[in-house]
Order: sequence, then C-alpha cells, then structure tokens
Amino acid sequence: MPPSLSRHSPYSKRNKQLRMATQTLANWAVALQFASLPRGVINAAIRSFYKLGRLHSCSDGVDLDAMHAALLNGIASHVHDYDDTHLDTIIHPTGPVASALLAMAESLDRSVSGEEFILALVVGIESECKVGLSVWPDHYDVGWHITSSTGSIGAAVAVSQLLNLSPAQTAHAIGLAATQVTGLREMFGSHTKSLHPGRAAQNGLLAAILASADYTSSTQALEAKRGWANVVSSMQHLDEQMATLPPNGRWEIERNSFKPFPCGIVVHPVIDGSIFLHGQLERNGIKIKDIRKVEVIVHPLVIELAGKTAPKDGLEAKFSVYHGASVGLLFGKATPAQYEEPVVNDSQVVWLRDRTRATVDEKLRPDEAVVIIRVSNDGDDSVTEVHIDHAVGSRERPMSDSQLTHKFVDQCVLVLGQDQTERASRWCWDLENQADVRDIKSVL
Amino acid sequence: MPPSLSRHSPYSKRNKQLRMATQTLANWAVALQFASLPRGVINAAIRSFYKLGRLHSCSDGVDLDAMHAALLNGIASHVHDYDDTHLDTIIHPTGPVASALLAMAESLDRSVSGEEFILALVVGIESECKVGLSVWPDHYDVGWHITSSTGSIGAAVAVSQLLNLSPAQTAHAIGLAATQVTGLREMFGSHTKSLHPGRAAQNGLLAAILASADYTSSTQALEAKRGWANVVSSMQHLDEQMATLPPNGRWEIERNSFKPFPCGIVVHPVIDGSIFLHGQLERNGIKIKDIRKVEVIVHPLVIELAGKTAPKDGLEAKFSVYHGASVGLLFGKATPAQYEEPVVNDSQVVWLRDRTRATVDEKLRPDEAVVIIRVSNDGDDSVTEVHIDHAVGSRERPMSDSQLTHKFVDQCVLVLGQDQTERASRWCWDLENQADVRDIKSVL
Repeated sequence: MPPSLSRHSPYSKRNKQLRMATQTLANWAVALQFASLPRGVINAAIRSFYKLGRLHSCSDGVDLDAMHAALLNGIASHVHDYDDTHLDTIIHPTGPVASALLAMAESLDRSVSGEEFILALVVGIESECKVGLSVWPDHYDVGWHITSSTGSIGAAVAVSQLLNLSPAQTAHAIGLAATQVTGLREMFGSHTKSLHPGRAAQNGLLAAILASADYTSSTQALEAKRGWANVVSSMQHLDEQMATLPPNGRWEIERNSFKPFPCGIVVHPVIDGSIFLHGQLERNGIKIKDIRKVEVIVHPLVIELAGKTAPKDGLEAKFSVYHGASVGLLFGKATPAQYEEPVVNDSQVVWLRDRTRATVDEKLRPDEAVVIIRVSNDGDDSVTEVHIDHAVGSRERPMSDSQLTHKFVDQCVLVLGQDQTERASRWCWDLENQADVRDIKSVL
Repeated sequence: MPPSLSRHSPYSKRNKQLRMATQTLANWAVALQFASLPRGVINAAIRSFYKLGRLHSCSDGVDLDAMHAALLNGIASHVHDYDDTHLDTIIHPTGPVASALLAMAESLDRSVSGEEFILALVVGIESECKVGLSVWPDHYDVGWHITSSTGSIGAAVAVSQLLNLSPAQTAHAIGLAATQVTGLREMFGSHTKSLHPGRAAQNGLLAAILASADYTSSTQALEAKRGWANVVSSMQHLDEQMATLPPNGRWEIERNSFKPFPCGIVVHPVIDGSIFLHGQLERNGIKIKDIRKVEVIVHPLVIELAGKTAPKDGLEAKFSVYHGASVGLLFGKATPAQYEEPVVNDSQVVWLRDRTRATVDEKLRPDEAVVIIRVSNDGDDSVTEVHIDHAVGSRERPMSDSQLTHKFVDQCVLVLGQDQTERASRWCWDLENQADVRDIKSVL
C-alpha cells in the first residue's frame, strides 16, 4: 500500500458526507506503484493481456492515428464475444482499457516498459470494475452495456496513469470519460455491440489526452447530483466502493475470468454440460438421432440474454443457449468454427436445436446449469443428466495458463503462422519483462 | 408532403401498438424533398446556418479528417454559449447537425448544393427536436445535456440524408447514434460542456458513415424496452412525436431562436431588462454609485442553471444572472467583451453584482423576468422597475435578419477583416443558391 493513500483518502476519515468519489479514485490511481502490486495481481494482469493479445493479432497491420487505433482495437476485442469477464458485474474489462493503452503507448515517443503497462492496466481495470459495482445491477438492468459505459472510465484512468497525469488532471479525465456514456443493450445481436468497447476505448483515450492539456470537466463527475452514477442508475454505492479500493478491499482484476467459448458467457455452463454429455453418449454408444429431447435448466438471465431459439447466423447463434447445447452435444466442442454460418444452418444442428427446451430456475447461479438428455432407442428410454456447478472459465474453475496458450496458438496460427504465433505467445507471457511495449507491433 | 409518406408511416394507421418510431423517423427523413419545404422552413434553416457560420470562422484554417473536423466544429459552435435555441426543449439544434454536415460535405468528392445542404439540415434539426420532445422534460431534469444527447441522433439523420442512405440504413444510423449518449449536465461550467456538441456531431457522423457500409444496430433503437428513450428517461412520447412529424405536425426548426447575448439563455430576460434600465437611468441622470439594491425576479430554472453569485472568470460569468444584470445596467450591452476576465473581475462590476439579489417566482415563464432598481440619492429614494414579458431573441421577439447580420459582422471582422467578412456574410445568406457548399472553405 502506498503510504500516501490513507492520508489522501477522505474515506479513511469514515466521513461519507465528503462524497469525493471521483477525486478519491484519481488519488488512488496516481499513488499506486508497481512495486506494491501483489504477485497474484500481476499474474492476473498478464493473463488478461495475453487473452486480449490473441485478438489483437487480427487488427494489426493497419497504420492508424491513436484515436482510430483505440477504436479498432476495442472493436476487435469484442467482435467475437470471446472476452474476459468480471463475473460480479459481467464487465469485460480488458478490452476498453488495453485497447486505449496500446494505442497511446504506440504513439508515444518514449519507451513504455512492461511494468508501466501492467500498472496502468491494473488501475484501469480496478477503476471500471469498482465504478461498475457501485451501480450494479440496476445500471445493467435498465439497459446499459456495462462493459462500455464503465470502460470509458477505466480507459481514462489507465491512460492518465501512463501519461503521469496529476491527481487533479486524472479527476478531470474521469469526468471527461464519464460524460461520454456509450452502449445500449438494445444493440446486442448487431454489429454495434462490438462498437461499444471500441468507442469506450476511444472515449477514455480522448479524455486523458484532453485532461493532459488541462481541459477541465468536473471533479465530482461520478458522485454529483447530476453526475454519472445518479444519471445512469437509480442506485449509487460509490462511497462503499471507493472505501474498498485495494489494498483496503479486494483486487477486482483477480476476479477476472476467461471465456473458453466464443459466445455469451451465460451460455457457458450449458455448453460445458453438453460437451460432457457428448463424451458420455460416445462412451455409451448412443447416437444423436436417438435423442428425443434435450432439456436445459438455467438462471433467468440465460433466457433473457441468450434466448434465440432459431438463430440465422453466427452472431445470433452466440446468443442462443439452444445452439450452444446443440453444438456441444454434436461436436463435443464450441470453438469459432461452430459459430460459422454453415454450422449454424446445418440440418443436424437445427434438428437438435429444435428438440432443445430451456427452463428457468431462479435458484441457480448464472454459471450453473443442468442438462438432461432423453433418448429413445427401439422403445428403450433412457435419461442422461449432468449438473454443472461452475462452468469452466468461472472463478471456481479458471482456465489454466496452458489452456489459454492452447487457445492463443489455435487461433493466431491461422493469421500469423506457427513461428510467429509462438514468438508472439512468448512475448505476451513475458509482458512484465518487456523493455518496450511498443515492440508489440513487431511480434503480432 | 411527399406522397409516399402516409403509406410508409405506421402511425397513419393510428395503430400505436406498432411502436416503430425509429423506422418511422428514418422513412420520413428519406422521403422528405427540398421542393416540399415551406418558405418559412427554408428561411429558418438559412438563419440557423448563418448564426453558426459566424462561429465557424474561428475554427477554420486547420486541415483535419472529417471525424476531427466534426468534433472541432461542434466544440466551436458551443464554446461561447452563444447558440441558437429550440426553446421547447432548450436544445441548441444547429451545432451538432451542421458541424457533422460541414465535415461530411467537405470530405465528399462531389459537389453539395445549397438546397441539398438545407434539406439535410432540416431533417437533422427536426429529428433531434422531435426526439428531444419525446423525453422532455424528464431527460433534462435527470441530468442529460439534451443538446448533445439528441444532437448525435440529429447529426446521424442529417448525414444519412446527405449520403442518400436507404430507410433501413438510416434507421441503423439512428441506432448507432442513439447508443452513444454524450453529455452530463454536471459538466456545465467546465470546458467539457462544449465538448458535448462536438462529440455529438462526431457520434452522428460516425453513425451515418458506418450505416452507409451496412453496419447494423437496431431498427427499434429509440423505442425498444432497453432502447434510447427508456434508458435515458422515465417518460417516452415517441409515438406522439413521430405521429406529428411535419407536415402532419409543426416544423420545429421554425421555433428555433437566436441568442442576442453570449451566455446561458435563461439569463437573457434579465439582461434585456437591465439594458432597458441602463437607458432609463441615463435619461433620468441617475448614477450607478447611487444604486442601493438590484432585485431580479425569475423562473426557478434561472437560479438552478445560472445561480453563480461570484463568478471568477468568463465561463462562470455566463452562468451568473447576477453578472448579466450587472453588465446590462453598467454598459447597456452584453457582448463577448462583457464576459472577458478583466470585466468579470472589474471592481465596479463586482460591486454592483454584490448588490444584486434574485427571487424565484414559479409563475414566470423562463423567458420572462422583472428587474427592480432601488436608488438612494441624498436621502431621496426611488424605485425603477421593468417587466420583460418575452426576452429579445425569444420566439415572440425574434432577432431580425439585420440584427443577425450586425452580430455576424461585429464578430467576424476581428478574424476575417471587413471585406472577407462581408463576402462571407453574403455567401451564408445566399446558402440556398450555392452550387457547392464545399466552397465555404474559401469564404470563411
């Protein structure tokens, strides 16, 4: 803990009447040092960055100004719905923050060390998650895409850190980001969903650059009567969240998880269960054509967010729990290939999808599901069932580093080839020791 | 009225259950023709553009890509708080729309006629005002800067028109703009306030450009359960507003008014009254030093938006009804010069400001005010009072074309010199007959 933190924080006085959330967050971000980051936090930051790096290989090769680079980086981070997820808020935190940071770093005329980059990434991710927690769940329920609406703020704080802005400038950057509230959930299922984190990255980058030139906003942007939290939500737990910025409270980045499947995270437990049952069916010699009915029992959010019964293309399939169950059972996997249009419209996939029914159980957690298969074979009926307590990729069952590497290589190899993919993978895992993050251009 | 309009509009069937506000607005914008614009609407568009042209002379001379041009144009339109105002919603409509249109027009490799430009300006301004009316006043009350939050949508529709997008593409452009909700009122009094219309112009431009490449959003972006209106407001009169798009209902652009003073519009009736009293005092030989007290009686919004009792600089002075009264009485005018820092901190201005008290009367309209001066001269007390029923610049007392010209010349001459200013003024008044609006670069 930086020694200055408790002196600077009005919350250390336990005087909630001060209501200085914005300035508190800015002070905290400026005071945080790399040396004070726990090992688990550094590792979580590297894993978050590594997961994103894979996606960035797709957007490389175009020379852009920083503003457009941030936009395209952010879109690329989300276009496959394959992000990391802070499950407490369902924010995908790394996309907006790292997209802005990479764009900023690459346009600086000085080197940016891996340690600097990690520190900025951590303050950005902590900021967006704490701010997100302060309005969760109402903010999301009312219709905001929380990844982008908080992502602007996270990106602003991160870039402010990279630019060594003062606490006052950082507070203004937060305000500048807070006033650009991007992302309606109504856009889910369209191209615009992935524009959101792109614009969030750009909003945050613009905010920090303007603040670095002493452009003013409001230093009570988050907490004021007509500030961010009150305008975008009917609840406001800013005081509580600002009082528990780490190390006083938990590090949110350590709660970041990684998606094993390229679709809405709420579908993951069902896919996990379906892949398990795919193996069971194979072992027991049961054929797909004998399946009479598939039942999935899920948290209500699954139907709300991924209830498409008859998806027409890959994008719609990402938000179909029925499609997820179907490909899991049929192929024993759910990789980007299972979300290509020919598979989405494959007659066997459609046949199985049409036999799948979903039931809501409010007692289940969002990362929990039950999958039941009813089979008829020559009048011989059987039932096979699995209960997924925590989906793979959840906090309780995180993906290992080698699982992440496997995915990285699997996908980058198509773009970069074997040698460069391995070089890129090593470079990203070694982020902490890089002398200059701007070198990423040469490896990705 | 374009003959196709009634066929396309679901509201013509009087079936409100259809709830197709977004598509209705898009269809209307695409169907509207220059030939069907009433003369009053064309004149209102030219006046709106002319008022903005003056400001654009300041931002000229830098070569920018369209995105940055839209941003800077929009900032320039608002930085002096000297905009046009749609008084029913207090939207400043021309800034975001014309800023995006100019940026787009200048980057096209074809000519853009004055008629085309006027038509696009009209559909943009109608769109933002109708959408604004559908959430007014709750949307503003909760804390959104309605000029930018609706300005993105207006700019998107206008640029869509200029690019000849289809009804479907235009609907997607509206969605793309609607998801970028920029502008918290908490930023008022800071640099960020004028960033809002800049970013709104850019949001709308980006939206239309993406839609022109068939980027998808939602075609129910405005009206859906988690669409724009429901997320940014607790009220939603979209059906009502879409059913009264002109010529079925009134043209909002004809209700656009122009500010005679470079400060918050709610201060205008007090300035108007103070300037009147300045003349009275002169005629009666009363000296400023003999003023004992100034009382202003105003609508509650005046204190809420312009209640700064001791402004420190020009920006704060724009939101001080006390400063407005003080310079009106002292100088008999309120031009940008009266908002320069030396005047704001002038001892006589401060002295008079400190003698000024404001009282709220909920029965007054926002463009109405009473100003009362109490004078003591050698024990001889007198009271002089004026009741401004409608401030100059209000719909009931609009600025004349020659008043607008006077202001244009007054301000542009400092930047452009006499000859070029007169040329620019003539060019802007003659907008309707211009063969190519891109020529504006050579006259401003």
